[in-house]
Amino acid sequence: MAIPVLRPLSTIAYNTIRLNGSVHKAKKLVEKGGEDAFFVSSHGGGVIAVADGVSGWAEKDVNPALFSCELMANASRFVEDEEVNYDPRSLIRKAHAATTFIGSATTWAEKDVNPALFSCELMANASSVVAMLETNGILKIASVGDCGVRVIRKGQIIFSTSPQEHYFDCPYQLSSEAIGQTFLDATVTTVELMEEDTVVMGSDGLFDNVFDREIISIVSSCDNVSDAAKALANLAYNHSKDSSFESPYSQEARTQGFDVPWWKKIMGMKLTGRTSSD
Amino acid sequence: MAIPVLRPLSTIAYNTIRLNGSVHKAKKLVEKGGEDAFFVSSHGGGVIAVADGVSGWAEKDVNPALFSCELMANASRFVEDEEVNYDPRSLIRKAHAATTFIGSATTWAEKDVNPALFSCELMANASSVVAMLETNGILKIASVGDCGVRVIRKGQIIFSTSPQEHYFDCPYQLSSEAIGQTFLDATVTTVELMEEDTVVMGSDGLFDNVFDREIISIVSSCDNVSDAAKALANLAYNHSKDSSFESPYSQEARTQGFDVPWWKKIMGMKLTGRTSSD
Repeated sequence: MAIPVLRPLSTIAYNTIRLNGSVHKAKKLVEKGGEDAFFVSSHGGGVIAVADGVSGWAEKDVNPALFSCELMANASRFVEDEEVNYDPRSLIRKAHAATTFIGSATTWAEKDVNPALFSCELMANASSVVAMLETNGILKIASVGDCGVRVIRKGQIIFSTSPQEHYFDCPYQLSSEAIGQTFLDATVTTVELMEEDTVVMGSDGLFDNVFDREIISIVSSCDNVSDAAKALANLAYNHSKDSSFESPYSQEARTQGFDVPWWKKIMGMKLTGRTSSD
Repeated sequence: MAIPVLRPLSTIAYNTIRLNGSVHKAKKLVEKGGEDAFFVSSHGGGVIAVADGVSGWAEKDVNPALFSCELMANASRFVEDEEVNYDPRSLIRKAHAATTFIGSATTWAEKDVNPALFSCELMANASSVVAMLETNGILKIASVGDCGVRVIRKGQIIFSTSPQEHYFDCPYQLSSEAIGQTFLDATVTTVELMEEDTVVMGSDGLFDNVFDREIISIVSSCDNVSDAAKALANLAYNHSKDSSFESPYSQEARTQGFDVPWWKKIMGMKLTGRTSSD
């Protein structure tokens, strides 16, 4: 069976559905990053999912995309499973249970390091969101963490998911170990779609860097979802590199009392924003 | 049949449900305002609804609460209707169809003015949201306009409705005339609740003046929903009167390029916020 997992080269994964009966695969988007994975399926009314792995692993010579890729591969494998029964929370449950993080363990084994000695370091995590569209137009969503969904109708966002965090910038995550969150922690919502609605799904790489009003503007101005996907990915990437841009993330950080330059040091360029000390 | 419509004296209507099998009626809250109406029912898992009438009517000697009150009275009358079948959009449809805005017409008739000559001026509008809790924990929501719902779980908002607007500060509204929006324009969503979740419902009087983080803080710090309701209402009222407070509404106005002092002049104190010219 083909496993339609795409591993985008960007820090965001992005898909759109238009309710015309077809589901469009998003292309690979931007130049860098890579901890995210997603898949698109035409099963039922269409299924899209995103997983956002922990980027910190990159510094340990472990590919941060392996866990999220494996999670999405398993999700795509189970998307037609009878036990899943077209329920997004059940799909997260099955996919998570089947995800062993073999890829990363193999990476360590190649380095002649006993993975058991590094069980803590071998732990991998990912936020994830799954959306399944029923043929009657009801979009069913299950989300663990800070990946998100926006539904745009007539030039405005009529539905948003809310991120789940333990505290600022520490999202709920599915884990390779018996800690962390599970499908039981998923927020489960539905929204009744109408024809011509556009669904935008992404990781925090999108929603931390691009305001909702910018998403609306880009989706409204693009003739097709493929162009909108590319434009959104480019905007997110450019905002993430622009230290003068006051991003949704930097605004939220400031609101919560964090010193932006300090965060910038440890978060790389994810947190951008001009402060009085800049 | 008793019609459990409460007409709060405040600019906001607020209710909370805890999933312990009982539904708490919110009390009347603050000192002023009055264009909002709401009702609470224990039918099914519990039903709450808010309607926010157009406050501009107050200047025309027409009670702005009459249309929203009648709408909520009808909603409560049909809440157990078989045709409604515990569907919030159907409840909006039935309630809206039955709402004739008699109250306001009567007011004009008492003034010996032919209502027909003032059909335009007699038109009344209201944003409205209805939430119906199934006994399996699924909260079904239908919303037209900028009344809203927040679901708080473990100290964070895990679900929010999104307001519908034609443009800034011009929300979708149900109307007494054959213009405006109908149940067909409602955004219909569901969210699976868990035990100990708190549901906050209100008009823009709450969400324009109180940040989500403040709602979380108040709900978390109060022992019961009645105290939380009072505290939220007081905070919304105090913020609305505090010209130095940078409210969600004033932030959004500034984001959209509106000059705050100009808006303050025509909007009364709804829009608050400090600007360089203040």
